[in-house]
Amino acid sequence: MTEGVVVVLNAGSSSLKFSLYEGDAVLLSGQVDGIGLRPRVMARDGAGTKLAVPDLATDPPGTPAEALLALLPWLREHLGGRPLLALGHRVVHGGQHHDRPRRVTPALIEELAALSPLAPLHQPHNLSPIRAAQDRVPDVPQVACFDTAFHRTIPEIAQVFALPFEMAARGIRRYGFHGLSYEYIASVLPEVAPDLATGRVVVAHLGNGASLCALQGGRSVATTMGFSALDGLPMGTRCGEIDPAVVLHLMREDGLDIAGVEALLYRRSGLLGLSGLSSDFRDLLASDDPRARFAIDVFVYRVARGIGSLAAALGGLDALVFTAGVGENAAPIRAAVCDACRWLGIEINETANAMKAPVITRAGSRVAAYVIPTDENLMIARHTRALLAGSSE
Amino acid sequence: MTEGVVVVLNAGSSSLKFSLYEGDAVLLSGQVDGIGLRPRVMARDGAGTKLAVPDLATDPPGTPAEALLALLPWLREHLGGRPLLALGHRVVHGGQHHDRPRRVTPALIEELAALSPLAPLHQPHNLSPIRAAQDRVPDVPQVACFDTAFHRTIPEIAQVFALPFEMAARGIRRYGFHGLSYEYIASVLPEVAPDLATGRVVVAHLGNGASLCALQGGRSVATTMGFSALDGLPMGTRCGEIDPAVVLHLMREDGLDIAGVEALLYRRSGLLGLSGLSSDFRDLLASDDPRARFAIDVFVYRVARGIGSLAAALGGLDALVFTAGVGENAAPIRAAVCDACRWLGIEINETANAMKAPVITRAGSRVAAYVIPTDENLMIARHTRALLAGSSE
Repeated sequence: MTEGVVVVLNAGSSSLKFSLYEGDAVLLSGQVDGIGLRPRVMARDGAGTKLAVPDLATDPPGTPAEALLALLPWLREHLGGRPLLALGHRVVHGGQHHDRPRRVTPALIEELAALSPLAPLHQPHNLSPIRAAQDRVPDVPQVACFDTAFHRTIPEIAQVFALPFEMAARGIRRYGFHGLSYEYIASVLPEVAPDLATGRVVVAHLGNGASLCALQGGRSVATTMGFSALDGLPMGTRCGEIDPAVVLHLMREDGLDIAGVEALLYRRSGLLGLSGLSSDFRDLLASDDPRARFAIDVFVYRVARGIGSLAAALGGLDALVFTAGVGENAAPIRAAVCDACRWLGIEINETANAMKAPVITRAGSRVAAYVIPTDENLMIARHTRALLAGSSE
Repeated sequence: MTEGVVVVLNAGSSSLKFSLYEGDAVLLSGQVDGIGLRPRVMARDGAGTKLAVPDLATDPPGTPAEALLALLPWLREHLGGRPLLALGHRVVHGGQHHDRPRRVTPALIEELAALSPLAPLHQPHNLSPIRAAQDRVPDVPQVACFDTAFHRTIPEIAQVFALPFEMAARGIRRYGFHGLSYEYIASVLPEVAPDLATGRVVVAHLGNGASLCALQGGRSVATTMGFSALDGLPMGTRCGEIDPAVVLHLMREDGLDIAGVEALLYRRSGLLGLSGLSSDFRDLLASDDPRARFAIDVFVYRVARGIGSLAAALGGLDALVFTAGVGENAAPIRAAVCDACRWLGIEINETANAMKAPVITRAGSRVAAYVIPTDENLMIARHTRALLAGSSE
């Protein structure tokens, strides 16, 4: 194993998450929030103890890139004498060709910047700290890990939309997202359930963002998110799958422009829109408002429909895996999804489900269901280390 | 039974189809094409013999409404002395409340006209002959039969999009279409397969337009078309389901306006777009161009995914029914769909499939597949007669 510490970074529009990994061990993790307004740093060591953090108030960073540069000296202090091996970045979009993480070069940065129109809300923010580090600490190697890469094994018939064929060639296709999460699940599944390594598995990544992935022998063969992170399942504030004519109708009849539709579909829809109350499952599960119940029912129904559709892509189902915030923690949601999937041979074990046991189905259940915590940061740390080890050989 | 002849009408932008029914028997059927350009009438009697038709060239009708008025005297000549009972119209959109056909009144016409923004390419054309007949032959009763009505039994969780809840109330919801076809299949299914009357059945209406419907005990509980006839399966020239962000991308990056996107998604996508060759399955099946094969593969894959999704809505599957042009006539498409649905328990009988037998699965097949010719016009004739009989009692 390559010696040293990997810094895993995940930059959003006003936030920067960071973790220091030595091997698979987290030395430190935290985040800067409120970048551009009133930045606030929070960090804990590997044991979960809060750490004293630098005060960014005197010269507040205006971008995640500036936040990274401001934090780097402090992060270096926490390496414990070990070398800083590399920065590993989560990048939402790797386009249609990157089927694995890549070492950052100036050419790669330009290539990834050209993909920004495909993910205008995320890609520019993901790239800004990469550019900043390339300019200011060019001696520190960087690796870009893509949310789309794991899905590049999806067969072409499932990647294309039924649009004029030249559109797929120029990038209008289903990419799929949450790939680092699915890749992590695929990597640990053989330990959790050795007989599933070659099986037909649907993974339900249910969090504030939500999608499903069909794994055949550990490789992605279909997923519910498409061209953008808007498609597929309903999410906290995102609509998921809708008839494209609805977009045209909202523009023609309600006079919305592109930005107006985008704001509606990304930020005011999903569980928040359906319930009128909250985008958070915990709030909805705790509420006795019938609309909260309705929003959850719609979500569960759509997850069950999606699992049926992915079972068709797999030609059957051997196991279902729940992961991510809601999938790992919301037992009533898991129970409702499993109940709606009884026809596929899933028989839930209520006790095991309430205890969040790894296996939440009965011994005789034809199809097993699992709860497996995901770890996208660990996946990035492993990829980054492996890529450096490979290139230094 | 109410005595007399029902005229069934189906008006498009430049065409008017007509059939005369006495009971369930067709006395005459035909159509006017090229309305607005160079109208041409074609008609056959109940035995299929071509009939002499009126020459519309001297005073060519400019609209389907004018075509109807021009044809009415000739149609009356072919009643064989029986009274003209009523005009029964196919109307694409009945909105969220009409769950059955309705007798035409001035108020109904206004109500249906107000739905035009929901189906701008069809509703105005469907309504224009209704208005014309109301004005010019007000003594002839008229009945409107909606493509959406049969789907009003779909549970609310499957009708809503995950948009702000007030949008469903003001009509932005999944309506579903091809309802007259599904209703016809549901009406004859008990004769074809008595044990399926209470079963879980997916009907595949595969034609130039294509959709799937989940029937539970003969009632629609889910369907693939949504707000418009654009959603769901890929079709001859329509895209079916796409990520809504694709619409926004085409506008922002390619500079398309609403009409440009509409033209692309309705007329240049689907099998035509994917193949670059043709929207017609016969052409594609006969071609050895790999793109023709690819377009068919995408179609079959999407049908199979849709069947999986609808099986989830039904909690399992007892039977699959193929209908409409492609479903009734394209044995290789049926074979490919059945093959992709083997995991659901469908085992095709190749001989029966090639012969277009009513049952195309083997004797031991856990799930049976059927070919049942649809007849939307007969459904309209029956509804029209039944509604008049009801109102005259």
